[in-house]
Amino acid sequence: MSKRPKLLLSAPAYWAGIWAEPLAKGGIDLAVYGRDAFRPDAIDYALSFRPPPGLLKSLPNLKAVFSLGAGVDGFNIDSDYPKHVPLVRFVDDTLSNEMATYVVLHTLIFHRNQRALDAAQRKGVWQQSLLPRRADATRVGILGFGEIGRLCAERLRSLSFVVSGWSRTRKTVEGIKSFAGDAELDAFLAQCDILVCLLPLTRETEGILNAKMFAKLPRGAFLINAARGGHQVEGAIVAAVDSGQLAGATLDVFETEPLPETSPLWRHPKITVTPHIAAISDPSASVRTVLDGIARFERGEPVANLVDLARGY
Amino acid sequence: MSKRPKLLLSAPAYWAGIWAEPLAKGGIDLAVYGRDAFRPDAIDYALSFRPPPGLLKSLPNLKAVFSLGAGVDGFNIDSDYPKHVPLVRFVDDTLSNEMATYVVLHTLIFHRNQRALDAAQRKGVWQQSLLPRRADATRVGILGFGEIGRLCAERLRSLSFVVSGWSRTRKTVEGIKSFAGDAELDAFLAQCDILVCLLPLTRETEGILNAKMFAKLPRGAFLINAARGGHQVEGAIVAAVDSGQLAGATLDVFETEPLPETSPLWRHPKITVTPHIAAISDPSASVRTVLDGIARFERGEPVANLVDLARGY
Repeated sequence: MSKRPKLLLSAPAYWAGIWAEPLAKGGIDLAVYGRDAFRPDAIDYALSFRPPPGLLKSLPNLKAVFSLGAGVDGFNIDSDYPKHVPLVRFVDDTLSNEMATYVVLHTLIFHRNQRALDAAQRKGVWQQSLLPRRADATRVGILGFGEIGRLCAERLRSLSFVVSGWSRTRKTVEGIKSFAGDAELDAFLAQCDILVCLLPLTRETEGILNAKMFAKLPRGAFLINAARGGHQVEGAIVAAVDSGQLAGATLDVFETEPLPETSPLWRHPKITVTPHIAAISDPSASVRTVLDGIARFERGEPVANLVDLARGY
Repeated sequence: MSKRPKLLLSAPAYWAGIWAEPLAKGGIDLAVYGRDAFRPDAIDYALSFRPPPGLLKSLPNLKAVFSLGAGVDGFNIDSDYPKHVPLVRFVDDTLSNEMATYVVLHTLIFHRNQRALDAAQRKGVWQQSLLPRRADATRVGILGFGEIGRLCAERLRSLSFVVSGWSRTRKTVEGIKSFAGDAELDAFLAQCDILVCLLPLTRETEGILNAKMFAKLPRGAFLINAARGGHQVEGAIVAAVDSGQLAGATLDVFETEPLPETSPLWRHPKITVTPHIAAISDPSASVRTVLDGIARFERGEPVANLVDLARGY
């Protein structure tokens, strides 16, 4: 390389400390947006969860943009995103694996009645009962059957659950039924005892977890949303749980984050709230991915996990 | 068969209702101990969790005894058990699978800090943090690496945990380290971030979950006991949790069951109490197994899952 590539980081201050040393070791110059002065035309790469709209357009020599997360909705909302610049999303085994443990945990909390057992413990009551269903008679549907969804599906299947996935295009995964496209969405929903949302957030999927969708699930289905708050209509979730159409929900993401103190979700007895921690990008893993990606761009080699900017994921 | 085999059921009343019809359909006459009159010499088979000591000895023509559970400690305590009569324990995929979902659930509740997240939700506090460890850097040890233990181990391994097992004899399971015998117990314990007890209850394993054993675990280890209450010294568990030697515990079994109202376990913030429901024998599955077993004994064929009465499991 004739000159050291220069990377602009636009992220919470926390991240700058993590990235400085490994980038320096990797031969990359770092500028932190909002902290360091930089010449826009000197920036080769950008790294962010959610850049200020217009920032990326102001960098005339940008070769590529890296997302710090698996979802790129933080970039989709930038209507000035420079479409000729490739956007790379963060796909990593450790991230996918964390998501799988989250999905398995909350599937099992519901499946095994752990919340009722917790309540019985608080009362000091010994209340035995058989599980309401066997795992091999419990159908879990993964709404958003991409790379992370596939790992979650396989791990649920290894616990004997009956697993299906829905995605825009049909997938072939052994032992897991693939539903595809709008035409098969209703049939997919009708067979979800537990619905797990792992969709990318796009114009098409915004607000998809709404009353109309819940009505298509079997009565008493359970909802897990570990994708984005923009997918869900929180008022409709509360109403569906209160009516019994949903047995309950586990939500890791919210319309507004942090979840406002006044939200009824915090204290609903059938709703578990977690603070967007299902799968937090491991900084050391993302450093490796970004260094490898920059090296590939510099050498003119193909780079994995490029976002299709037209479809938005 | 010249005559219909006659089976004596000694179990809670609940079970008699479940068994009557399938046994009749299977060509077996049923007598319920404590309800029906029967001639001791007419009984061919017995079925129980924990028969009254001496009952089995009083049946001179007994061909075999079936345990309703996977553990046979309820028979071991009958010092008059007629040693010439084969004892068959209940081993069933559905039971093993339920145990695996229990072990995975409580491993993940600890691993993913779900109790701290529950507490934060009760307070309405948004508290993000990375997981303290990655699953692939978290070591789970299965104390009692038999058939059920192996299934649990494999399912934890499929979630990326580092899994080992301890048993009397060495086992070969891909990707899972097998420790064997007394000589390797301390080395096994020293590498258990999470210890899962699935041992059979015998004279050798009674009270094994005690202060001396907890001292051999890494500081801050987590204990799951889904085997028998007789394995654990409850005072030592509370002391080890209060001292920080154990980070916490999930207990499905207790020295006295139902767990007495006065037990401090009910209200300990770091101890989860479940009412011996980790794996409840599915009546329909056990009916199939017993009918198949009786047919095999009647035809003189080999029967699986015979208990070694000398070692006690």
